Order: sequence, then structure tokens, then C-alpha cells
Amino acid sequence: MRYSINETHNPDLISWVESANDAATDFPIQNLPFGVFRRQSDSQPTVGIAIGDMILDVAAAHAAGFYSGLAAEAAVSCKNDSLNPLMALGATHWSALRAQTSALLQKEIELGQAAQKKARTLLVAMREAEMLLPVKIGDFTDFLTSIYHATNAGQIFEPDRPLGRNFEYLPRAYHGRSSTIIVSGTPIQRPKGQIVTAPDAPPRYEPSRAFDYELEVGFYIGQSNNWGEPIAVADAEDHLFGLCLVNDWSARDIQGWEMQPLGPFLSKSTASTVSPWVISLEALAPFRRPAFTRAEDAPALLPHLYDAHNQAQGALDLNLEIHYSTENMRQAELAPALICQSSMKYLYWTPAQMIAHHTSNGCQMNIGDMFASGTVSGPTNDERGCMLELSWGCTQPYELPSGEKRCYVEDGDEIVLTGFCQRDGYRRIGLGECRSLIVPNHS
Amino acid sequence: MRYSINETHNPDLISWVESANDAATDFPIQNLPFGVFRRQSDSQPTVGIAIGDMILDVAAAHAAGFYSGLAAEAAVSCKNDSLNPLMALGATHWSALRAQTSALLQKEIELGQAAQKKARTLLVAMREAEMLLPVKIGDFTDFLTSIYHATNAGQIFEPDRPLGRNFEYLPRAYHGRSSTIIVSGTPIQRPKGQIVTAPDAPPRYEPSRAFDYELEVGFYIGQSNNWGEPIAVADAEDHLFGLCLVNDWSARDIQGWEMQPLGPFLSKSTASTVSPWVISLEALAPFRRPAFTRAEDAPALLPHLYDAHNQAQGALDLNLEIHYSTENMRQAELAPALICQSSMKYLYWTPAQMIAHHTSNGCQMNIGDMFASGTVSGPTNDERGCMLELSWGCTQPYELPSGEKRCYVEDGDEIVLTGFCQRDGYRRIGLGECRSLIVPNHS
Repeated sequence: MRYSINETHNPDLISWVESANDAATDFPIQNLPFGVFRRQSDSQPTVGIAIGDMILDVAAAHAAGFYSGLAAEAAVSCKNDSLNPLMALGATHWSALRAQTSALLQKEIELGQAAQKKARTLLVAMREAEMLLPVKIGDFTDFLTSIYHATNAGQIFEPDRPLGRNFEYLPRAYHGRSSTIIVSGTPIQRPKGQIVTAPDAPPRYEPSRAFDYELEVGFYIGQSNNWGEPIAVADAEDHLFGLCLVNDWSARDIQGWEMQPLGPFLSKSTASTVSPWVISLEALAPFRRPAFTRAEDAPALLPHLYDAHNQAQGALDLNLEIHYSTENMRQAELAPALICQSSMKYLYWTPAQMIAHHTSNGCQMNIGDMFASGTVSGPTNDERGCMLELSWGCTQPYELPSGEKRCYVEDGDEIVLTGFCQRDGYRRIGLGECRSLIVPNHS
Repeated sequence: MRYSINETHNPDLISWVESANDAATDFPIQNLPFGVFRRQSDSQPTVGIAIGDMILDVAAAHAAGFYSGLAAEAAVSCKNDSLNPLMALGATHWSALRAQTSALLQKEIELGQAAQKKARTLLVAMREAEMLLPVKIGDFTDFLTSIYHATNAGQIFEPDRPLGRNFEYLPRAYHGRSSTIIVSGTPIQRPKGQIVTAPDAPPRYEPSRAFDYELEVGFYIGQSNNWGEPIAVADAEDHLFGLCLVNDWSARDIQGWEMQPLGPFLSKSTASTVSPWVISLEALAPFRRPAFTRAEDAPALLPHLYDAHNQAQGALDLNLEIHYSTENMRQAELAPALICQSSMKYLYWTPAQMIAHHTSNGCQMNIGDMFASGTVSGPTNDERGCMLELSWGCTQPYELPSGEKRCYVEDGDEIVLTGFCQRDGYRRIGLGECRSLIVPNHS
């Protein structure tokens, strides 16, 4: 399904939920992302849709009679502790639910006084709700698709190391760990691991000294393929439900020691933090852009990774930011430092190409599987999506507004990823935040 | 829980299921492995216990009143399409169910004529049942713990390449793909992928020319740890439910091209075949052995990977075999060739050390997660657990009894892994088989 720009994207729509009309909100009525929340710690989790600073309880809205047809079927599936049942219904249902939710929340549509009063009872304030991991994630795959990150990371370890010939032929990736995917706001304990402190010394089992964030975008598979049946690039977005922010925590010292010959393992399985709201592909329809412009001497794309529409429209114009604060900064009431402003436009491969590659051997991707982009770094110094790059492997410690310097994250540091799409003639669509506080190792 | 040798291991026990008393059976009354089966393709899957050439329907046996106490609670959880609910109950329940099942199936225990007649109706012939994937697997991890396989594979690609310093400090591993874990008997389509046929030529997307089996042992996690809390070696087996055979299919040509810098990805996600019966740790109690003897100049184990009991008893004496047939061999009615006789004793690390390492960074292992040993190769030519080693990277094609030669598997070849424990004074305990037929790529 190719989503076109429709009435739900009309920038003139305003909502009777006043906070959704604030120009700075991530969640105007044109966004309507999906998440899973509970009102209190002892409440049943259920699916919500973000609107301004409120959450619409979708199943409750259905029980109150606000949905009909396909949207009603979709809303029924929202009485659940994950988005997986909604995902299983497919894109026509997702779109119907979004359209009727837009209508329900629009100021122009006269609900009648009684109905509007009733509708207000279906809203929960975000500040009173707890957001949960929105999806039961089966398999997690982490790609490495920013050519700037790949080049920087290579050069930091070996200044003369070439990028590697496979980068321009395939979106690099490795299987990740899904059991340690956690939701924004969950504090993360610095991991222990085998740490080598001198070239020939034996490793010691102690807390990582090089724990790092990675700014990534995550994608949820909403429809599966059959085992043995690759997904073509042209069809790949049919399988995509939506996206979120991912902070793929990485212990660089553990990584350096363990990585040969099988790639990263424990360095990557401490935690991967995801933002709680899943932005639908449909909400992002106005922000499509051409695929990354390959170098003139780059090899031709192999046919199974090429699709003309994907080249023209397969990428997204999504701005990404990292906000950083230390314990000292928060005590001094300094605002978090904006240490990175990057963009999804720097990804060498589109999400559709990642799906096509991932399934090119017949690998099955199931409903709820997640894949992430890899660190989204751009060409300039303020577009570096991890501290490894920002401190250039600790050769140029990064100075924060408090005067503190960082090679990697310290205990008490808090890292918040944000993201948004912006384009003249459309409302700004935000992703919410992906927040992590680092706490000392206690094991 | 450390399982001791008890009455269920008594070699003199015989069963009223006659086929279980055959010396050659994998499933004597001393084994009693768990699996998931259905009687017909439209029947509900349910948990069974193998006995000779029959399957005991555990939930039906409970409904008929054959279990009491903890075993009854365990049997209730068996009315399910996976072993996960049984796993969740913990080792005391698993053991109680095994003990009462042993009693139910023993010839010496007088059930009474009516009860025995009733008990016979709870049995299903294996040849009439369909075995299913027994566990809902969350995350899959593949280790690389045979020093012989690691050394051989390294030398095949670079004759002078050293083993790598990390091998003796940690059990090497990478995250694998769980969505493509399939049960024995499922035919496997040769995968397509990016194939490079000359050093500087561009890759082409076509069927793998170097598709290979890998003889491995798989382990199921039956009890989880909390996120952030490593499992000590001494406690690790409390988290282990049982083991099976794994054939970790590997496309060597795809692997060589994609592997730098992130390790194997699509080369490993075509399929991993598991045998359907899960042998409990308790059934294997008589077959414990000391951990691998490290070289005299090997570095000391780091403290978090050392446990005296694990060094003395943490390994298993499990024989492993590969039986190979081609389409021609089957047409000529030649018996499958026994191309490899290896042993789990060649693993450099014990399952408990693998768990301790895996969780050393706080990574959570959930009920139903699986990890595999990596290719179990030994020091001699007939102990090579994959065709890469057996044909030494295609420099010494392997000759089969039909005169056919193999560098890697060809379409129509069938590979059967088997395994068994054997020791004087005990009944032989088998793992059943892990069978795969390779079919041409049709995508």
C-alpha cells in the first residue's frame, strides 16, 4: 500500500484537544501515533493514540460507539497489551482507524455536546499514564546504513581502513537481541564485561569504561512474509507498520574484544531503548524523499535491490536530535545540551531495501519483528550519532556546557533522542522522546 | 537444581511399551523426552513424551487421572502447543512429571488391567503423529565453542591465521535468527544471496553454491533471569530445561561476502533445523563429565566463568553423528553414509559457562530462548561437523559411497543428525533425529 497525502494530513485540521494545536507539539491531529499505556500501575495495558498531551483510549472509544466498519474491527484489536493484533489486520485497517480517529478528534466535526463530553472521558493525560513497550518483538535486526558512521567508525579504529567493498552492494546488518529491548524512561545499568586495558593483558570482568549511545530509527514489521519467499523492494512497505526512535546501547570496550570473528554480541545486548509511540507510515506520507544519492563511481544497484519508485520516494525526511545532560548540569539547572542534529536522509539504504535484503534469502519476518537503521550520522561534526564519533575514539573528549568532558557516557548522564518531520505546508510530525538515564553497575 | 542419578535412571527398568525395551531405541523408559505433536494435521497440538516408538499424550494421561501433586500441575501445563508453560513451572515440576511418567510406563508397577488398558489409549504411534517445533523460541544465540572447528575454519580461509586471543577467555557467540528455526523433516530451499564468483567482480543475486550443514547441540532456557542480573556458573543449570540437535544451515559464499565487519547475517538465517524431542537435563545425569582440558599454557579462567563443580561435572558425554544421502544413493538403495562421528566432549566451554557469559552483561534470557553450541568438530578427519571442514574449503571434495563428490550440499541431498549418550551400567539415551532434505531454489 502506497499511502498518499489525504485529508488526514491537511494542515488546517485542528482538534478539540487544545494541546494538539500547539505548533510545538509532536502529536498534532495529523500524526496520531500508536502506543500501549496503562492509567495506573495496576491497570490493564491497552492501546492508545497520542493527541497533544493526551492519550485516546482506543478500545474505550470503540466501546463508546465512536468507530464503525474496518475502523471498529481495528479498534477491537486495540484492547490488548501490544500492537501486534492491530498489526495483524493489515494496512487497510490501520488506515481506516487513523481516518476515523482523525474525524473523532477534529474540532470541525460536530460530535454533539453529549458525544463530545463522552469523548473527553476517553482521554488520559500523558503525565498520568505509564507508557509500555508497544510491541511484542520477535526478532530484532540492527543495520549499519549511514555511510558516514561506517566510515568514521572504521577510521577511528584504523585510520587507513577502507570502507569495505560490500557497503555499496548491501545494507550491512547483524542479528540483535530482542529480550533486552526496553521502553523510554527505563534506567540502564552500566554493563560489566570482559575489559582489556592493555594490548596483551588478560581481560578483567568489570564495568564497561566505554558505554555509548547510538542514535537510530527503528521500524516495526506489521505484516509477515512466508518463509522462503523474498519480499521485493516494490512491495516492502506493505510489510511496514511504522517507526520509532531507538537508542542502541553499545559497550565499545566489550565490542572491541569480542567482535572477531563473529561480530558484536554482549556489547549490544545490554539494552536497546525504544520510544513508546509508533508513527505510522501513513502519517509520514508528506515527508517522502528520494533515496540517498550514490557516488558517481558507485556500482550499480543489483536488480533485486532496485525499484524506480523507491529511488524517487523511498527515503524519509526525518530530523533526529540528541539532548545530553549530566547530573551536575541538572543540579545547576542547565538545559540539556543539543549535541547532535542529524537526519534520516543520510541513510544509504531505504527501509524498503533493508526489508528486501533481509528477506532475499527467504528469511521470514514476522509481525512484531523490529529492525533498526544503525547509527544515523551525517558528514559534519555536529551530526555524529554516537559518542565514539563525537569524541573521535576518546582522542577529542567532548565538552559539555558545564565544562565537563566526555569520551563515553558516565553514570548519572541522561540521553534523550528526539525526531521530527517538518515541511512547508504541513504540520510538524514528532516522534516523542527516547530517554535513558545511566546508573552504576550493581551486580 | 543438580540432578542426581535416581531410580528413573535404573537400567533394569523396563516398560510395558515393548518398543521402549529394544536396546537400539533412542527412547527407553530412562529417557522420557518432551515434544509437541499432533495426531492429524487438523488436531490440536499438545505435549507428548517419547517412549519407544510411541508418544504418551501427557494432558490426556492427566485427564485420565494418572498424575498427582506437582506432576499433575505439570501435566495440566502440557495441554498446549509449546513446552513454554511447562518450562515456566520450574525444575521441581519437570522432575516430578518425569518420575510419575516413569512409574506410569513401568512394567513392574501394577496398574491393574483396567488402568493399563486405559493407559494404552493415551499412546499415539510416532509414525502416525506429526512432530512440531516444541518451543516458542524468543531469542536464538549461536556459540562457537569447538576449538577444532574454530581452528579449522580459520585455517581454511587463511592458513596462517591464529585462532584469536579471545577464544580461550570467552565462549564466542553471535545473535542468531529465531524466526527461521524449523523442526526436523521440513525441506529446506537452497537460499539465494549475493554471490561473488571472482575476487573483484560484483556480486550476483543467485542461489548459494556453498550451502552447508553444521552439527550442533541446542539448549533451551527453562527459567529466566532478571534483566541486569547475571547468572553465576554455579547456578546456570537451574535455568536449563534440556537439549536437542541443531543443524545450523550456513551459506558459506554469502557468509564470506557479508561478514565484515558485523559477522554472519543472511548466511545463517535461511534455516536452523532442530530435532523435535527435548532431552531433559535430568535424563542426562549419568553422562556428566569434566569440562574440556585446557592447554597447559592456556590463561586462567576469569573468576566469573569458573566453578569447581562445573569443571568436574559441567560437560556431557554425548556422541554426535551425521548421516548423508544423495538422491542417487537413495535411488540405488544405498544406506546413508556416516560421514561424521563427533562428541560434545570437544566443546571448550560448558553450557553453564555459555549461560554465565551470555548474562554477564545483564542480558535477560527468557523462557524458551535457545542457544546452540556451534559446530561440534573434533581433532580427526572423521569428526568434522560441517562440509566446509570435510572438503577443506572444497580443496578435497568428499567422496560418498556412490562415488559422488561433495564440496557442499547439493539439491536432493538429505542430512540426518543423530546423537546419543552411552555408558556401562546405564541404558543408552538417544536424541532422535534432525532430518533435512535440500530442495532447489524456486524464488
